[in-house]
Amino acid sequence: MVRNLLYLVVGMVLVAGCVSVHKTERITEDKPAAVSKIQQDKKPPLVLRHVVLFRFKDGTTNQQIKDAENAFCSLPGKIGSIYDFEWGTDVSIENRSEGFTHCFIVTFLNEADRAQYLPHPAHKELVSISQPYLDKILVIDYWAKP
Amino acid sequence: MVRNLLYLVVGMVLVAGCVSVHKTERITEDKPAAVSKIQQDKKPPLVLRHVVLFRFKDGTTNQQIKDAENAFCSLPGKIGSIYDFEWGTDVSIENRSEGFTHCFIVTFLNEADRAQYLPHPAHKELVSISQPYLDKILVIDYWAKP
Repeated sequence: MVRNLLYLVVGMVLVAGCVSVHKTERITEDKPAAVSKIQQDKKPPLVLRHVVLFRFKDGTTNQQIKDAENAFCSLPGKIGSIYDFEWGTDVSIENRSEGFTHCFIVTFLNEADRAQYLPHPAHKELVSISQPYLDKILVIDYWAKP
Repeated sequence: MVRNLLYLVVGMVLVAGCVSVHKTERITEDKPAAVSKIQQDKKPPLVLRHVVLFRFKDGTTNQQIKDAENAFCSLPGKIGSIYDFEWGTDVSIENRSEGFTHCFIVTFLNEADRAQYLPHPAHKELVSISQPYLDKILVIDYWAKP
């Protein structure tokens, strides 16, 4: 009888052992995914949008425009305080763009991050690359719920 | 010996049975969460941003500005083709806003949705409410990866 119970217990321990390993694997698999999901979904309540419009001087070449675009688009890789970035060229159909052809939106989490961005060497480099070709630059910042 | 094996198998089946129930529960718990996550994360590859800047005439009252803001902010509730909307008032520190104080960004999924928006009665109402007080309106649209 004791021997029978022993076999019963050994059987249970064997299966429980397998399950234990399986569970550990599941937890190991689940945890990073769950954490990264939470991080992805965790949106700040407010963000600071920094909207920049470019109007190039007449006669600016396509290459010079491309250089300015590339300089702007390189900023998120160089300035850690940028939370988000997008840009595009005008495709409006209302003829109210006032000659502005490029819109860049740099997003920050707070004013301190914007304060790091403005004097950053990479931002200053963008200014020195693009300013010679710019007829007008327009900047408007606002707080938004993302 | 056969009896011992029987006890072993019974022990394994007992534990496996418990685990099976546990696993079923886990799957039932995981499934809806996984599905809703996929739905939440389903972003369109590109969106059409419609950026509108307002510069009010000198002497426009706070109430007249509020009326224009309210008319704009009511559009997402009235025009189904609006995919996303955000707005804010200028807090830039570079003195390059050219007198523009308000930025509204209306997002569409495609040009057809923008084509529905522009002549929509609610949009026309916004124009008739705000235009008398506007010194200048600037519009730039661009395609962006959201």
